[in-house]
Amino acid sequence: MATATSLPAQNTHTTNNNIEPGQTVKLPMEPDGIIRLSRVEVYPEYIDEYLDMAAEVGRISLITEPGVLTMYALAEKEHPCIITILETYASQEAYRSHIASEHFQKYKRGTLHMVKDLRLVDQTEINRVNRIINFISE
Amino acid sequence: MATATSLPAQNTHTTNNNIEPGQTVKLPMEPDGIIRLSRVEVYPEYIDEYLDMAAEVGRISLITEPGVLTMYALAEKEHPCIITILETYASQEAYRSHIASEHFQKYKRGTLHMVKDLRLVDQTEINRVNRIINFISE
Repeated sequence: MATATSLPAQNTHTTNNNIEPGQTVKLPMEPDGIIRLSRVEVYPEYIDEYLDMAAEVGRISLITEPGVLTMYALAEKEHPCIITILETYASQEAYRSHIASEHFQKYKRGTLHMVKDLRLVDQTEINRVNRIINFISE
Repeated sequence: MATATSLPAQNTHTTNNNIEPGQTVKLPMEPDGIIRLSRVEVYPEYIDEYLDMAAEVGRISLITEPGVLTMYALAEKEHPCIITILETYASQEAYRSHIASEHFQKYKRGTLHMVKDLRLVDQTEINRVNRIINFISE
């Protein structure tokens, strides 16, 4: 288990400098950054396969992409085929880079037929001093 | 800005030991812990007042309650009166303690007339090694 480093003084409300071995240092949040709740409804017959692929793309994105600040996925307890992903990108450029990545393209192509409905709902934080850090710790 | 401490080795997938001065050390997540997305729809005429009260209760809960692991609130960009709060409690006991707290009771009583609709949707993480830390940094 790594010892976390101190957080930089500025511009870091969703920055992850609390990194584990092998994870990338995160970029600061820029004014054109994106905070998104993606709601994915998955066909029940594909749910196990979908969850494996979603967990994999989240893990690789967090570990390798400096501009992917969060990729935290939840399934509803009562409706396990409804997935919500808290996605945070440091900038529009970081988002474009994520979308173009091999791991995202593999996920997107591999899960298209599994997804019944997809809604991308962009958000703003209600309190800028309320900060969140997301990382993989295996 | 404080230097973050190292993460404990076990049982900490949503534990916040990355604490700022004045914040409490967080409890580990227990098997009966709660991860919840609360969706709050606020009457437009009350939105500014609601956001102030929601930001305050989130801040106080994170700073003072060892069992409140996340309290991260977002507003939809296109529908700013729809608020989603990622709430994580270390245990059922931590949740009961939160609900009984003076700051939560003040928020609840003070915002009842502002809330048009409230849905508490309990969740499970799709990847237990994907961890999140939430804290106040003023």
